[in-house]
Amino acid sequence: MKFSIMVEQLDRIASQLNSIATHQPLTPIDGSVLIEVGTSTVNFTSTDRQCELRYTVPVLSQQEGKVAVPVRLLSQIAKVLRKEEPCELAFDQERSVLSVSSGLSLFDLQTLPADDFPELANDEYDNEFVMDADTLKDMLNRTKFAAAKDDQRQFLRGVHFNLVEKDNKKVFDGVATDGFRMAIISHKAPEGLNEFPGIIVAEKSAAIISRIFNSDENVTVSYTQEKIRLVSDGTRFTSLLLANDYPEYNRLIPSDSDLNLSIDVKTLLFGLREVLTVSSDVKENVTLNITKDKVALKVSSVGQGQAKTELSGTFTGEKELTMRFVGTHLAGVLEIIDDGTADFTLNETNGAIKITKQGDDTAVFVVMPQKN
Amino acid sequence: MKFSIMVEQLDRIASQLNSIATHQPLTPIDGSVLIEVGTSTVNFTSTDRQCELRYTVPVLSQQEGKVAVPVRLLSQIAKVLRKEEPCELAFDQERSVLSVSSGLSLFDLQTLPADDFPELANDEYDNEFVMDADTLKDMLNRTKFAAAKDDQRQFLRGVHFNLVEKDNKKVFDGVATDGFRMAIISHKAPEGLNEFPGIIVAEKSAAIISRIFNSDENVTVSYTQEKIRLVSDGTRFTSLLLANDYPEYNRLIPSDSDLNLSIDVKTLLFGLREVLTVSSDVKENVTLNITKDKVALKVSSVGQGQAKTELSGTFTGEKELTMRFVGTHLAGVLEIIDDGTADFTLNETNGAIKITKQGDDTAVFVVMPQKN
Repeated sequence: MKFSIMVEQLDRIASQLNSIATHQPLTPIDGSVLIEVGTSTVNFTSTDRQCELRYTVPVLSQQEGKVAVPVRLLSQIAKVLRKEEPCELAFDQERSVLSVSSGLSLFDLQTLPADDFPELANDEYDNEFVMDADTLKDMLNRTKFAAAKDDQRQFLRGVHFNLVEKDNKKVFDGVATDGFRMAIISHKAPEGLNEFPGIIVAEKSAAIISRIFNSDENVTVSYTQEKIRLVSDGTRFTSLLLANDYPEYNRLIPSDSDLNLSIDVKTLLFGLREVLTVSSDVKENVTLNITKDKVALKVSSVGQGQAKTELSGTFTGEKELTMRFVGTHLAGVLEIIDDGTADFTLNETNGAIKITKQGDDTAVFVVMPQKN
Repeated sequence: MKFSIMVEQLDRIASQLNSIATHQPLTPIDGSVLIEVGTSTVNFTSTDRQCELRYTVPVLSQQEGKVAVPVRLLSQIAKVLRKEEPCELAFDQERSVLSVSSGLSLFDLQTLPADDFPELANDEYDNEFVMDADTLKDMLNRTKFAAAKDDQRQFLRGVHFNLVEKDNKKVFDGVATDGFRMAIISHKAPEGLNEFPGIIVAEKSAAIISRIFNSDENVTVSYTQEKIRLVSDGTRFTSLLLANDYPEYNRLIPSDSDLNLSIDVKTLLFGLREVLTVSSDVKENVTLNITKDKVALKVSSVGQGQAKTELSGTFTGEKELTMRFVGTHLAGVLEIIDDGTADFTLNETNGAIKITKQGDDTAVFVVMPQKN
């Protein structure tokens, strides 16, 4: 096995693969990259046994073959070599070393047998469709913050993709919730996608997908009940799916009411961060007291003290309304909305609130208030 | 107690004091800032019981008094408030709270009795001298990397200040060593400093001093055998000293020899980082094979592999010389030298090597090779 590649390209590939691989591998092969050289291309593959990333690049191959080496080490080496130079990778079968050479520098890396590299899943898929990377990334980027981090309920620990019919149109939803807040991002369904079983992509896979594809690419999505594969140019990402027990999320969206609060997103976020400085706990509650044209924020933290501030807002209610939220839950939603004006649909019975952004009909957020 | 201060100034002060205070205080008072308001000034003081930092600022005082509050909390609040606004701090003795208010925001912080705040040392000093902050900081910044991090020998865990006579001139040395490498920075002795007992400033205090004084300031240094105080404008830093058992460091500098290697600092540093990528240990050895016009670097790391590279250098020796160093020790010295050409004074008996920078006679570095 022998081929040449530009250091810059090797660096980019090895760095992404290093972030996929298991960081504290139980066996050396789990922290490795499989390098497979064909007649005119090379595959670089890493896996954490839940997902797998493969890059295929055209190279001038001098000798075919395959071998595995520690991916972290290969990434570190690619990082220190001069980016604009080529480097040569050659497998010396007798000494069992992979030589990486560039300029006057030579690295001999200990190797692992290519045949030990684990296979994630077979290559059979039931269906496929194509969607643009921008839409795909948006469905992940604005939802994944709301996924549960360590809930016993596996199905909450990812982003749910679902095809629904709204106003006689096929809509493709990305949804995440941890039971305290929920994010739903809806886009026009991809061309030709008429049926879809609904799947759940684990949070780590969601984060990888939103990183590895470029905005202007088209991604071919293949899937079965158990796995998903996304392919674009030389990038192929495969992931096992979480079992689909997703709740009927549309039922969890509070119905419209005539109690509405409009408020500037950046102002509210700034105010929240201000009062949350006295919090001693990431789950600290913040109380919102909402009147005709004012929102008063208050945090009382045991052992630390109290913080209060007042902001302008427009409220449609006749009398004041007081609600309590986990401060970081509300702030998390506002960070995703980022700017502009947010509309809060409130409920006097202290049920869930719906948050949308004026002028953006692709996103609906729901936050549960704390019970008193 | 009641006074006003600009948020920006409070933020700067509280942030520095927060970095002094104990991060996991055993008692609340250890993580606090003492605020003492006089008729026209306020003192802000924090301590970790080894050192103490006090800022004195002129303020419009509305009521004298003193109180202590958690310094981390005060710093967080100052960080989120609008920097260009003033804020008011008022102690409500009845409710035992310090109110910090700015604009429409109000924070009520739980307080601690000012009288519980620990006193570091008395205010009696035997001697003092004045030196410019630039020189003081240089003596710390280019030495403290070489201080021992966790050696049982307390005296190695700091920077040694010493007055010596070289070529009939009084010279002020800053020295640090961990037994593997040593840094000596020498400057003209401060005006009027004719006798000096030699002191050792602990590494944490050294780091604080090089941060809190501005380059253009003059610093008044007072000292006894046990403590040191540095004062400039409104900044006063006090630190207990380490017991002075410092070794006779000048004896540890290798004598001149006719085996000299001149090499570009950035080139050698780049090469070292390259070969050290295969290291599995921060104490990994690097072997230097030095010939007439070449330096070959090599690292062999158990279980990872081997790395080699070659650099240009000018060596005065007749035959080749091979030496072995802890790679990070050599790299640490080169990072401090930063650029230009380094001169290595070598020794065939495999003793310590001396490293200086061409055109800079203020710094001498010593690195011990590894025994074979």
